[in-house]
Amino acid sequence: MTRVTIDEIRAAASRITPIAQRTLVWTSRSFDTHTGVEVFFKCENLQKGGAFKIRGAANFLYSLSEAERANGVVAFSSGNHAQAVAIAARALGMKATLVMPDDAPKSKLAATRAQGATIITYDRLTGSREAIGRQISAETGAILVPPFDHPWIMAGAGTCALELMEQTPHLDALLVPLGGGGLLSGSAIAAKALNPAIRVFGVEPALANDYWLSLKKGEPVEIASPPTIADGLRTTKPGVNNFPVIQELVEEVLLVSEDEIKEAVKFILSRMKLLVEPSGAVGAAAVMAGKLPAGMGRVGIILSGGNVDLEVLAGL
Amino acid sequence: MTRVTIDEIRAAASRITPIAQRTLVWTSRSFDTHTGVEVFFKCENLQKGGAFKIRGAANFLYSLSEAERANGVVAFSSGNHAQAVAIAARALGMKATLVMPDDAPKSKLAATRAQGATIITYDRLTGSREAIGRQISAETGAILVPPFDHPWIMAGAGTCALELMEQTPHLDALLVPLGGGGLLSGSAIAAKALNPAIRVFGVEPALANDYWLSLKKGEPVEIASPPTIADGLRTTKPGVNNFPVIQELVEEVLLVSEDEIKEAVKFILSRMKLLVEPSGAVGAAAVMAGKLPAGMGRVGIILSGGNVDLEVLAGL
Repeated sequence: MTRVTIDEIRAAASRITPIAQRTLVWTSRSFDTHTGVEVFFKCENLQKGGAFKIRGAANFLYSLSEAERANGVVAFSSGNHAQAVAIAARALGMKATLVMPDDAPKSKLAATRAQGATIITYDRLTGSREAIGRQISAETGAILVPPFDHPWIMAGAGTCALELMEQTPHLDALLVPLGGGGLLSGSAIAAKALNPAIRVFGVEPALANDYWLSLKKGEPVEIASPPTIADGLRTTKPGVNNFPVIQELVEEVLLVSEDEIKEAVKFILSRMKLLVEPSGAVGAAAVMAGKLPAGMGRVGIILSGGNVDLEVLAGL
Repeated sequence: MTRVTIDEIRAAASRITPIAQRTLVWTSRSFDTHTGVEVFFKCENLQKGGAFKIRGAANFLYSLSEAERANGVVAFSSGNHAQAVAIAARALGMKATLVMPDDAPKSKLAATRAQGATIITYDRLTGSREAIGRQISAETGAILVPPFDHPWIMAGAGTCALELMEQTPHLDALLVPLGGGGLLSGSAIAAKALNPAIRVFGVEPALANDYWLSLKKGEPVEIASPPTIADGLRTTKPGVNNFPVIQELVEEVLLVSEDEIKEAVKFILSRMKLLVEPSGAVGAAAVMAGKLPAGMGRVGIILSGGNVDLEVLAGL
């Protein structure tokens, strides 16, 4: 296990510039008035591919040697990571094969296919995407791009907080959606390096509380496949590379209910006119539900993605 | 009837600065790739009150004398104008009474009420909002703020195109939603003054084609109350102040179907992650449906508002 440094995050930031975008930081008087906190939203829903995932995927692909790039890449993902790998591979002229659950959001399946990647679907209840992905890798020599548990992915994801800190000085706290821990671990390293006093929080759906349980126990705990609507946060276990960073740098994991997530998606949509997917809205949900400790003045929230099927949205 | 000049629009722009926002200009690779046109979206859905209407309302209220301001203002509107008058009146410490149809979008009723205005609802099929508004004006001395048919409202609305032209040079064309004609007439004056070669188009729902019919006939034509989902464009007759300006400066009125409007709302939401109300999406709808004459390179589109009930949105 390699510990990722701020220098590696800075290197990733300059490496991924041709592919990833420097996203907007959004403020909303409505949100601030409603919650009593001054919030700065990092809009990764407006990122290429509709989520922060392009940052890690691009950094991973750029970090491969020419020989490693030759046989293409393979990835398994419920959606945003797959799309990100497809976009990054296309930009670098590489072949990409994506293993996706057959019940993944249609918008994510379609968007990934549109990038020219090969898609292999499997039944999420009976199949093992890891097994399928490893088999393809073994047969074709394609490199497996892990969704979160890798230093290159963490460093790439960390560029998101690096940008936010540059765009918005003097933040008291940073709230980051927490699935496998790639975004949170990378962001915590970047945020703490730039401002050691900043308080970093992860936010998990209460239904997908693997990190919350793991931190309590002091070691990674595995949970059953979580039924949360935040489909990007349905990981069952902390990443080996991510867990110790989060253990060290993150103050607390805040838990939000399904209803709190839905309320946040709806508020951001109706009042701020922005579409955020449920996974991307958990930070806002935590603040709206009063889960953040008192006394925070300026708070950064990463809106990690905006890919949601309109039919799913209509269901909220 | 007074002809509004670019100087009056410039004066309005500086006058309304304390209340109205300079909104973002948005670009979208997805939209451009999909349509083959390079589009610059002026995001009035992100304007204070969620629509461009604050520009005209603020300019009108600022233009009143102290004596005129004393008795407050009254306005009738299906929503966005009412909300704008309420916000502007509150900012200037004036009393506001709004006459709104009882079937107006709930979000607009709630938002107007939240501004501390008095709301009087009426039955759109049996009541006359003009009569109710005039009666209140006569009884209380409150000044009636017209929704579009007034030089101050036109000059205020024109600040939207003025900003867009400053933010985005060298536009070949400008597309503007067309209801009563306040936004289009003001925008056409501003756009043509800054660039006489720009081609200005109005966009109407085919179900609310009062301007299209009027321009064809050469004089204002009245239509029956139009059932379009674009509730902000349900005017039945061109404004007396607006019509001649549009007759002179606007090249053509493009018509879009209800399905084309819905497709545009959905594309902007799912691909651009922005919430636009049906009335605000007609310009995008026209481009997506190929209604714009060929040969346009850089096109400005005003997204005029973003106030839509989430239940209505779910229905799309």
